[in-house]
Amino acid sequence: MNLGWREPYPLKDLLEVETSLPAVIDNDANCAALGEMWKGAGNGAKDLVCVTLGTGVGGGVITNGDIVHGVSGAAGEIGHITSMAEGGAPCNCGKTGCLETIASATGIVRIATEALNEGTPAGELAAVYKETGYVTAKDVFDSGKRNDQLALKVIDSVALHLGIALANIANTLNPEKIVLGGGVSKAGNVLLDPIKAQFLRNSFPRVAQSTEISIATLGNDAGVIGAAWLVKNKIAQA
Amino acid sequence: MNLGWREPYPLKDLLEVETSLPAVIDNDANCAALGEMWKGAGNGAKDLVCVTLGTGVGGGVITNGDIVHGVSGAAGEIGHITSMAEGGAPCNCGKTGCLETIASATGIVRIATEALNEGTPAGELAAVYKETGYVTAKDVFDSGKRNDQLALKVIDSVALHLGIALANIANTLNPEKIVLGGGVSKAGNVLLDPIKAQFLRNSFPRVAQSTEISIATLGNDAGVIGAAWLVKNKIAQA
Repeated sequence: MNLGWREPYPLKDLLEVETSLPAVIDNDANCAALGEMWKGAGNGAKDLVCVTLGTGVGGGVITNGDIVHGVSGAAGEIGHITSMAEGGAPCNCGKTGCLETIASATGIVRIATEALNEGTPAGELAAVYKETGYVTAKDVFDSGKRNDQLALKVIDSVALHLGIALANIANTLNPEKIVLGGGVSKAGNVLLDPIKAQFLRNSFPRVAQSTEISIATLGNDAGVIGAAWLVKNKIAQA
Repeated sequence: MNLGWREPYPLKDLLEVETSLPAVIDNDANCAALGEMWKGAGNGAKDLVCVTLGTGVGGGVITNGDIVHGVSGAAGEIGHITSMAEGGAPCNCGKTGCLETIASATGIVRIATEALNEGTPAGELAAVYKETGYVTAKDVFDSGKRNDQLALKVIDSVALHLGIALANIANTLNPEKIVLGGGVSKAGNVLLDPIKAQFLRNSFPRVAQSTEISIATLGNDAGVIGAAWLVKNKIAQA
C-alpha cells in the first residue's frame, strides 16, 4: 500500500517514542507471508514464498525461517518479474512485460479484452462482453469453469507465465511451499490446475518433487497474524 | 560435481567418525558463493547470489548472511531457470529452454553453430568455422571484441536471456551483489556490458538502483575459502 510517506520515514522510532513500547515494522506483503508461514498454508515451513494475486501482484519471501528484505527492501517484487522478453504490456513500474501485467486481475481483464476484440469471438464470455461492454476476472474464471473456449485460452496464457515465474522462483529457492493468495487465487482449480501443470513442466526435477503450491488460508488476516509473529520473534530477541 | 554417491550418503557422519573431529559439508556452488561473500567480490554482502557460467550454469544463494538450501537442497539451480517458454533447446535435466542451454559455454557454442549454419554467414567467426569446422565460446567473444556482427548477435542473445534471469532473481531477492564466476565470466565487457543493459531494463527500478552485478575475484579458490567460512561459522556455533 502506498501511503505517500517519503523515505526514509522513521515510523518505528516515532511509534516507540509515542507509545514508550518497543516496535517492529514491515510491509503488508511480508507480514502476510509470515502469517501464512506461522498459522496458515505454510504450516511452519521455514522456506516459503507468498504470492498475492490481486489488482496487482505482490510477494513475500521467507528463507531459513526469516523474511528476506534484500539490500534496499525491494525483495519480493515478484509482480515485476519479466514474463515477456519482448512485446509485453506496459506496467505501472515503468517496465514492460511484468508478471503483474498478466497474472493480476487487471492483467487477466486486459488479456481477455484483447482476445474479445480479435475477429468475431463466440461463446459465453463473448456474450457477457457484448451485453455489458466489459468482463471481469471472475467472468473469465466462471466461463472457463463452464468450458468456454475463449476463457480457457485466456486462463492458459495466464497459467503459462505464472507457472514459469513460480517455477523459476522455486528453481532458485526450492521453498517447501509457494502460497498463492489474493482475489485471483479464489478462482479454484480452473486456474490452479493449469498453473500446477506449467510449474511442474518448468521446475528442475528435484524442485518439482519437493516444492508444493498451496492456496493461502488466512485471507485478510494473514497480515496481522504475521505482524504478531514479528512482535513475538523480533522484539523478544532484541 | 557428480561423484556417483547415492542419496542419502552420510558423508558428514563418516568424516566425523574417521577423524574424530566435527565436520560440516556443503556443495561446490554453495561454498563458492560463501567464499565470494566472505573474501571475494561480495566484500561482506549479507545478500548475495553467485552464478557460475562454465560448461554448465550453477548457482549459490545467500540471504541474511546464510546459504539457502531449500526444502530438499535444490535451491540455487539457477541453470535450470526456464528462459524460453516455447521452442527452447533440450537440457540435460530433462526440461527444455533452461538458462544453461543458452548461457553456458556449451550453450553459446550451440547458438553460434546454429547461426553459422544459417544461410551464407560472413565475417571472422564464419572464417574460423569454415577453417576448423567448429567454434568455441572464446572464439565468439574474441570475434565479438573485434566487432564481428555474427558474434555480436550471438552475444546479444545470450545477454538477453541471462540479463532477464538475473533481473528476475534480483526482483525476488534484491541482493546487494550478483557475482558472476566461471570461464564464461572471463569474456569481459563484450559480454558484461550487454548483460548489465538487459539487467537494468528488466529490474524493478529500486532493484536496478541497488543490486550490483560483479565479476568473481577468487577463481577456483572460492570453494575452499567458502568451506573455511563454514568451519569458522557453523562448527563454532554448534
